[in-house]
Amino acid sequence: MARWVSLSMREAASMYGTAVAIFFVILVAALQGSVPPKSPFPYHIPLDSKGVLKLSWNVSYVQETIHFQLSVRDFRAGVLFGMSDRGELENADLVVLWTDGNRAYFADTWSDQKGQIHLDTQQDYQLLQAQETSDSLSLLFKRSFATCDPKDYLIEDDTVHLVYGILEEPVQSLEAINTSGLQTGLQLVQLLKTEVPTPAMPEDVQKMDLKAPEVTIPGEETTYWCHVIELSQSFSRHHIIMYEAIVTEGNEALVHHMEVFQCTAELDNPDFSGPCDSKMKPDRLNYCRHVLAAWALGAKPFYYPEEAGIAFGGPGFSRYLRLEIHYHNPLKIQGRQDSSGIRLYYTATLRRFDAGIMELGLVYTPVMAIPPRETAFVLTGYCTDKCTQLALPPHGIHIFASQLHTHLTGRKVVTVLARDGQERKIVNRDNHYSPHFQEIRMLKKIVSVHPGDVLITSCTYNTDDREVATVGGFGIHEEMCVNYVHYYPKTDLELCKSAVDPGFLQKYFHLVNRFNSEEVCTCPQASVPEQFTSVPWNSFSRETLKALYNYAPISMHCNKSSAVRFQGEWDLQPLPKIISTLKEPTPNCPAHRAPGPAGPTVVNIG
Amino acid sequence: MARWVSLSMREAASMYGTAVAIFFVILVAALQGSVPPKSPFPYHIPLDSKGVLKLSWNVSYVQETIHFQLSVRDFRAGVLFGMSDRGELENADLVVLWTDGNRAYFADTWSDQKGQIHLDTQQDYQLLQAQETSDSLSLLFKRSFATCDPKDYLIEDDTVHLVYGILEEPVQSLEAINTSGLQTGLQLVQLLKTEVPTPAMPEDVQKMDLKAPEVTIPGEETTYWCHVIELSQSFSRHHIIMYEAIVTEGNEALVHHMEVFQCTAELDNPDFSGPCDSKMKPDRLNYCRHVLAAWALGAKPFYYPEEAGIAFGGPGFSRYLRLEIHYHNPLKIQGRQDSSGIRLYYTATLRRFDAGIMELGLVYTPVMAIPPRETAFVLTGYCTDKCTQLALPPHGIHIFASQLHTHLTGRKVVTVLARDGQERKIVNRDNHYSPHFQEIRMLKKIVSVHPGDVLITSCTYNTDDREVATVGGFGIHEEMCVNYVHYYPKTDLELCKSAVDPGFLQKYFHLVNRFNSEEVCTCPQASVPEQFTSVPWNSFSRETLKALYNYAPISMHCNKSSAVRFQGEWDLQPLPKIISTLKEPTPNCPAHRAPGPAGPTVVNIG
Repeated sequence: MARWVSLSMREAASMYGTAVAIFFVILVAALQGSVPPKSPFPYHIPLDSKGVLKLSWNVSYVQETIHFQLSVRDFRAGVLFGMSDRGELENADLVVLWTDGNRAYFADTWSDQKGQIHLDTQQDYQLLQAQETSDSLSLLFKRSFATCDPKDYLIEDDTVHLVYGILEEPVQSLEAINTSGLQTGLQLVQLLKTEVPTPAMPEDVQKMDLKAPEVTIPGEETTYWCHVIELSQSFSRHHIIMYEAIVTEGNEALVHHMEVFQCTAELDNPDFSGPCDSKMKPDRLNYCRHVLAAWALGAKPFYYPEEAGIAFGGPGFSRYLRLEIHYHNPLKIQGRQDSSGIRLYYTATLRRFDAGIMELGLVYTPVMAIPPRETAFVLTGYCTDKCTQLALPPHGIHIFASQLHTHLTGRKVVTVLARDGQERKIVNRDNHYSPHFQEIRMLKKIVSVHPGDVLITSCTYNTDDREVATVGGFGIHEEMCVNYVHYYPKTDLELCKSAVDPGFLQKYFHLVNRFNSEEVCTCPQASVPEQFTSVPWNSFSRETLKALYNYAPISMHCNKSSAVRFQGEWDLQPLPKIISTLKEPTPNCPAHRAPGPAGPTVVNIG
Repeated sequence: MARWVSLSMREAASMYGTAVAIFFVILVAALQGSVPPKSPFPYHIPLDSKGVLKLSWNVSYVQETIHFQLSVRDFRAGVLFGMSDRGELENADLVVLWTDGNRAYFADTWSDQKGQIHLDTQQDYQLLQAQETSDSLSLLFKRSFATCDPKDYLIEDDTVHLVYGILEEPVQSLEAINTSGLQTGLQLVQLLKTEVPTPAMPEDVQKMDLKAPEVTIPGEETTYWCHVIELSQSFSRHHIIMYEAIVTEGNEALVHHMEVFQCTAELDNPDFSGPCDSKMKPDRLNYCRHVLAAWALGAKPFYYPEEAGIAFGGPGFSRYLRLEIHYHNPLKIQGRQDSSGIRLYYTATLRRFDAGIMELGLVYTPVMAIPPRETAFVLTGYCTDKCTQLALPPHGIHIFASQLHTHLTGRKVVTVLARDGQERKIVNRDNHYSPHFQEIRMLKKIVSVHPGDVLITSCTYNTDDREVATVGGFGIHEEMCVNYVHYYPKTDLELCKSAVDPGFLQKYFHLVNRFNSEEVCTCPQASVPEQFTSVPWNSFSRETLKALYNYAPISMHCNKSSAVRFQGEWDLQPLPKIISTLKEPTPNCPAHRAPGPAGPTVVNIG
């Protein structure tokens, strides 16, 4: 079936003329290097929408190494594959397989800010095998997570922007590759997935589809659709142990996120299906805020740990569920039908713990805003010691999964746990976060949160392409900063979020006026978004807004549901004091650097 | 004379017991490595005050490598030598030669924040030779400027804090070394010196000593002593081509800096010798502000380039010189006699260009202040396009040397040249600046400044040990941010410095009061230092002060001398707009990493 590559390069050579002196040829030492692991590749992803490039990989956490298998259909003259900060082909860490019409070469390279490709002084991608089947070329190579070559991408737990390019014609040298002329693309993936075994489904597992009833998606950019679903009178207490999204075919780009909420038990809820902000919506639906399931663009099926499930049904639980679908329809497409939703897998055999979902981060309020033309503006939301002291059980809770959420300008999200004023652990972090890839991720290690702990969630935004301030809110052009943490045992605490005190924000607008020409209306009738829109954005108003957010007291939402606070004083709370922060760990460079090739590897000779 | 080291380790072994299994032994491949260069070592420095440790070195800019020769008098059991950010033995990059009572080892190591020593995974210091003479041990080793090992110090053009430690007794392993118990120390040096040949002195060179007349140093912390020296009536025009300091023996720690100023030509100056702030000092001395020579602690003899010299004497030049000595006497020693000063070397054979000295940076004014407890607070002074346009000749000036100056809290200084809103070049930079090592440094490349260019000088301060704000001013506990640039051809522009507009600073105090409890008196009788002293320092007042300095208009000193401005409007000037900044270059990692040892090198076997 498979044969060692020979690539029919003689034909190519005759097409592209005489062989050219190769500047830098080292023989195929790498091919005798380490043997490919016997285990198959558990992870697969297509890199392009046509299925030309497919990537499979596995991860060795012991060796801190990834083996990649890249297959290229209809291989012609070369392929580029690698990683970059946000999916650009500039400043990327790339492997290149290219042919000069005579031979084929494989090399570890990097691209500069103009997209020009250069050979790495350290060859950290090690080619292990190159195979040709009837219709594709397959490359097997490996790389350490960290190489300590400053030109290399550091592979971490978070989102990785994979990039690729296809060479249609042979090139005389690596430097001759013009990346701007290539067919290129990017794919988002978490390379270092958490390797927990998928729990087996019990025999009594049942399915329930909670779907929109053939909704006509409104021709508006942002719609939150609310749909009430009633469980049967006799539906008893169950544990949801898995769920997944069902997205109507063709609507994949419109369905931005979906959540299932349970209503408050006392209420008898009417039938409703319509926009959540409709005047026709019964007020009682505001009491349906208890999260049962949450899915967002890019998320995979979600399995609860074997010891926990999320409870629903039976005494004390409302029979009414609210499905909320966020349709994002920037092209304002009219008349599209949708019946997307969530499929629940549940069991009557209750597990040991009830699981819960808690929202950390910022309240959805315009008082938290990002100035325009910022490339890395940070907003931070707090879950204070006072709230965790009041709401968490004595032995604390255990977070096992996390889903980070922002709207379009989010670039990084992190939640840190602090105890006694000291940052202790990272709950979840994505330094390459993309709003287009909001997976629920299982944590590598369960994080326990004790009463009195503080959870600090920071989001970094890029508003470089915006001309007015971006305020917090529900709209897709407004921003959010949320970490949905999945944990057990369940508590009443559903929201632990903050926002700056509104009175201090008004002091800020006064300050801006004193240093400028009274542009901001500080009269009572001015709304906060209007006030932010009239701020003259200069270095002083930008820096002082940052200073305000890092100093002013906060208003806490320490809530049982979005409408019900725990008892206590939650306004004008001091910011948590952090006296020591976590240090960025120095990456482990490979202890004994392989004596690898100093230049490209020749893949076939004639 | 010299013999290969054998170190009499058998005796030590019998003293310290049986040989211990060596964890990690690789034979002496390094000793056959590259041959030491034939050229001698041009640079020498004692590391300690007793002369136990002496370092010699040379620099290859082509190979980007330094060869070090470290000699240790009365060697006993080991020595540590290396570099760290500010001279600590923690977080240092170290070579260690140690004995375990049986063998001697040499290794590239690093110390963590507790001072614990660890073996580097990359061995970047390469031992070339170890020799013992009758009374000392001498080690020859080399290292690249940059190693790309994150644990290694990056050797750059600026000040390097060399550190050392002496092991008195054998240790069983590297990890057993307790750095806190060692005799240690530090020495400041510029390792990558500018290699311009010292110009030969012409045959007609003459010397002139400008010295304090047996001054009794006042028993006060800060004294600026002014002493007027008169040249003879017939003294004609000469070029100073070299000068050096003459510091009275025993007063090395008291004489902080010295300058020689020429007086305005028209004035007939009386004899004076006394504190510069004395009521007895004639007002006319304020017109003696034209810098002829400047020396500060740590500076070496200063040679002008062959094509330039600094003019003095003859028509149009005053016959009066003012020697100003800054005595820093923190212990308030009484009755110490001093006749320190500057020795000028000058010639009647005028060189092609008159050279000049220009002050860049901040005006000495309390409006520029550093809050207490800051570890890296930056103040910036500007020489604006408007000033250079007015004051520089059409073909510009050429800066060939630079002396950075701050008082005690200065940690970094940099001057950047910007043109058309874009940062173009670094004039001089010291990221490891120390106020105790203020050399005049020849630039590696002459920097040309054209009319319309902007020069931006930034100083970074550490006030972590201070409890009140540090304001700008002349006192040693006040701060300065100055770059004395040495250039030709000479112009009338002697000061090109700035400070924040005082009116905007008052707006800042109002702002602080609005967010706090009106602590700052904004009444007319309050002085700026008093106002800064009463600011409540929290994150908001700190950050908004930074924001103010980066935003508010400036007052420019575009001066012929400190008292005479060029004509024009210099108050409420806009800050220069910088649209692109210089990128930090990625250090060149050694192209082909030597296949060096993965562990310690055994220096002798038996």
